[in-house]
Amino acid sequence: MDIDIERNSGIPLAEQVSQAIAAQIRSGAITKGSKLPSVRKLSDMASVSFVTAVQAYELLEKEGLITRIQGKGTYVKEEVFIEEQEFPESETDGATEWQQSVVDYVPGTAFWRQHQHRSSLPLHGVGLSVSAIDQTLLPVEELAKGIQELIRREPAILAESGGIQGDEELRDVIADYLLEEEKKPAVSSGEVLITSGIQQAIDLVARTFVGPGDVVAMESPTYAGAIDIFRARGAVIIPIPVDEDGMRVDVLASFCHTRPPKVIYTMPSCHNPTGVTMSSERRAQLLRIACDYNSITVEDDTLGNNYLGDSSFPALKNSDEDGRVIYLKDFSEMLPSACKMTAILASGTFLSRLAGTKAIADPGSPILMQKAVLSFFKSGRFTKHKSKLNLVLRERRDMAIDLLRKNAPSGVRWIVPNGGFNIWLTLPPWMNTDMLLMEGQRHGVTFLPGSTCYPAEPEYHHLRISFSHVPKDELERGIKTLCKLLASALHSRSYFPGSSMRNL
Amino acid sequence: MDIDIERNSGIPLAEQVSQAIAAQIRSGAITKGSKLPSVRKLSDMASVSFVTAVQAYELLEKEGLITRIQGKGTYVKEEVFIEEQEFPESETDGATEWQQSVVDYVPGTAFWRQHQHRSSLPLHGVGLSVSAIDQTLLPVEELAKGIQELIRREPAILAESGGIQGDEELRDVIADYLLEEEKKPAVSSGEVLITSGIQQAIDLVARTFVGPGDVVAMESPTYAGAIDIFRARGAVIIPIPVDEDGMRVDVLASFCHTRPPKVIYTMPSCHNPTGVTMSSERRAQLLRIACDYNSITVEDDTLGNNYLGDSSFPALKNSDEDGRVIYLKDFSEMLPSACKMTAILASGTFLSRLAGTKAIADPGSPILMQKAVLSFFKSGRFTKHKSKLNLVLRERRDMAIDLLRKNAPSGVRWIVPNGGFNIWLTLPPWMNTDMLLMEGQRHGVTFLPGSTCYPAEPEYHHLRISFSHVPKDELERGIKTLCKLLASALHSRSYFPGSSMRNL
Repeated sequence: MDIDIERNSGIPLAEQVSQAIAAQIRSGAITKGSKLPSVRKLSDMASVSFVTAVQAYELLEKEGLITRIQGKGTYVKEEVFIEEQEFPESETDGATEWQQSVVDYVPGTAFWRQHQHRSSLPLHGVGLSVSAIDQTLLPVEELAKGIQELIRREPAILAESGGIQGDEELRDVIADYLLEEEKKPAVSSGEVLITSGIQQAIDLVARTFVGPGDVVAMESPTYAGAIDIFRARGAVIIPIPVDEDGMRVDVLASFCHTRPPKVIYTMPSCHNPTGVTMSSERRAQLLRIACDYNSITVEDDTLGNNYLGDSSFPALKNSDEDGRVIYLKDFSEMLPSACKMTAILASGTFLSRLAGTKAIADPGSPILMQKAVLSFFKSGRFTKHKSKLNLVLRERRDMAIDLLRKNAPSGVRWIVPNGGFNIWLTLPPWMNTDMLLMEGQRHGVTFLPGSTCYPAEPEYHHLRISFSHVPKDELERGIKTLCKLLASALHSRSYFPGSSMRNL
Repeated sequence: MDIDIERNSGIPLAEQVSQAIAAQIRSGAITKGSKLPSVRKLSDMASVSFVTAVQAYELLEKEGLITRIQGKGTYVKEEVFIEEQEFPESETDGATEWQQSVVDYVPGTAFWRQHQHRSSLPLHGVGLSVSAIDQTLLPVEELAKGIQELIRREPAILAESGGIQGDEELRDVIADYLLEEEKKPAVSSGEVLITSGIQQAIDLVARTFVGPGDVVAMESPTYAGAIDIFRARGAVIIPIPVDEDGMRVDVLASFCHTRPPKVIYTMPSCHNPTGVTMSSERRAQLLRIACDYNSITVEDDTLGNNYLGDSSFPALKNSDEDGRVIYLKDFSEMLPSACKMTAILASGTFLSRLAGTKAIADPGSPILMQKAVLSFFKSGRFTKHKSKLNLVLRERRDMAIDLLRKNAPSGVRWIVPNGGFNIWLTLPPWMNTDMLLMEGQRHGVTFLPGSTCYPAEPEYHHLRISFSHVPKDELERGIKTLCKLLASALHSRSYFPGSSMRNL
């Protein structure tokens, strides 16, 4: 904490100290809810008297920035407004000023903004923006028991560092699971690489194969996390529109003449955010294009679980004869946060190069967690858990669709997803869901504004709701509230200033 | 596993199958020790008869590539020679061929090679290359108990995802610990960011602030992991030589006129690999240079523990008035692998931009592990553990130096480190320690060849040994073996072909 005192400035010392702290609270350098130094420590740090330190804290309390809890300490209040990090609040904060001049490579904040949306939910409201499973549905007890048992048997497991590719037994079991349970292609454990989440997986692929100027084709809209990752590598992103049969591969083909993609990033099954699934014809076309233009196809199968139980469309990798497809399967959504895991399937030098990149900066998740997940798979409990989850998700999806049918105003359309956690709603083209979100927060419902999902020119008249994250009663309340909000907005046509007039 | 069969080629099917598998074993696509498919699965995958699959495995067994364990399965042998991934072994392996044409961004393999060195230790030998603590000295039991307790009380802790900066209580405790126990600067928890290891920490800084063409000045030699990370960002690396007082800041100053560095990466205390510590004068000079040229100083305090118990040199960050220093403290070496942790101290927009980068691809370590480490700190046990560790390390260092004094041939010099885990040995300039390592492996001792630690033009006549990783009896045996090896090499002057004649 930087506190710069000017003893000859004429400004009372207590005021200088409190202003310096206030500036850092407002700029977010000191985070909401964090603990501040004791009065004694503050007087040391700022080289002021004990009394002055006390006064400084009194001033901050008066400003409503901090709260003092008897016996515990002094804390920054939770509900302090954090402003954007553009201009320093206080003129005396020299550190922040020179820092501003430093150029960084923090990319466009698609995912970051998404993260911020989550934190803006009012206490009484329903958050429909988070694409994740309701925590109560996760096998926490079972995995907790598994971890307990592993530690009891062998405490030294904490000291083991795993291989770069991840625990070999786990890779083996994942390979078997994918083949047996999901009809994915047969691979040896050597062609599996484990990372601690889907973002690491995509990031690993991007860092290995994508550099400044490399062309990356992706669906538009798409998974916001992927946008940031490829942007951060300096990729030239080619957005390919999506319809009810998935990516418009005809559009991709037309781009390829002038901008052959080095990488094609796609979610062929249960696309995030639209929920659509790519038809067989388009899958075949996509693979042919990738072959013709020597593109690396990155197949993200994260939400590719299937409610209907029958064989869903085979993965692109199932038809991959030349090792062109890098397949990603994220299991994180079905496991508690501590056990998050994504499997990458790749062959030959693709696999070894990904491992080479991983060796540099990513040790992977602790062996303890990998072994816990391993037992969970080996015992067959993961398969059972997944089936149970699929039943629940199907039920929630049906409930959400039913509520929309009964409550949504005309002019609102949606796609019924056959898997995943989300429903993509499309509103009339003059609507702006970024602005609608602010209204939603006031009325106690949040959702993901569609614009965060576009890698290039955004569309503002879509939104994504998740039916998987909140309990059923909240889901009902949230969707009904949303529908009321939509009805009111559509009726008043009040959101067209600033939004584009587009044909649907 | 790709197995391409040409039924009309005239080559027996079993031979084609075995050659396809052999190629992938030799290229590393199928890793040593991994389990191969059952005969039935193999016959499915390759679309050959059961008998052909059996024959294919028999051929591979004859070649010494696989081993079949009754009742368990078929495995790739552990000791298979893995060749460099430059040329495909088999002409029929089309996948590997086209993959070779794909350009990647996997950087120079300084750290990767280091990793490979570790795996080449013969069973009877002593590995002195690993800069890490002997696992038996780590507080595994205590942390295991802590984790058990956390899970018992609240299994749902597995489902909690932490904030991007890391658990707030833990950041608070780390800030207090650094101030109270290590006399590092006072910071609020808001200025602390937790990552799961030193490589992630350096990588986070590099990804946030370093891009293609940005100038990064660093000690030469330096920590190999950092070389790869900055190279991967396309940095222009300026190597600054090191002497017994640390980085030659006068040389740095002379570079700054023409190549002002955006980032200066330095290990002022217990430099890795040399073990030297930067003098006060040079610390002040470095900070002045950073100020004059608006450089970001990245202070890596990883090995900055101090045996002597008195106040070691204050950190650069202690004199940092403008928020120019990003301070890294790696606790990983003192904690079991599952609890690895590095703290980054940064202020203002540096901190928030690092957090922005982290949000994109790194969820951080599980809350469970963070909370376990938190208890370990809060109870004071970390401080006790560290003191104990320092005693043991001092003892080991003294033992290693003593063994060198008694056994090393003349012509070998070394620096006595005042902290850390390693000793840097310097041999006559015509020696080549890359080649010496091969001899060492044959005689049962490994070490880190110095060339892997140079970011630009390497020097070949140094090596690094670690005294912290192996038990005392092995340490003695290892150093004695090394000294015999050195005596023999120096006597025969047999290593000068190919090495440069340099003045020390």
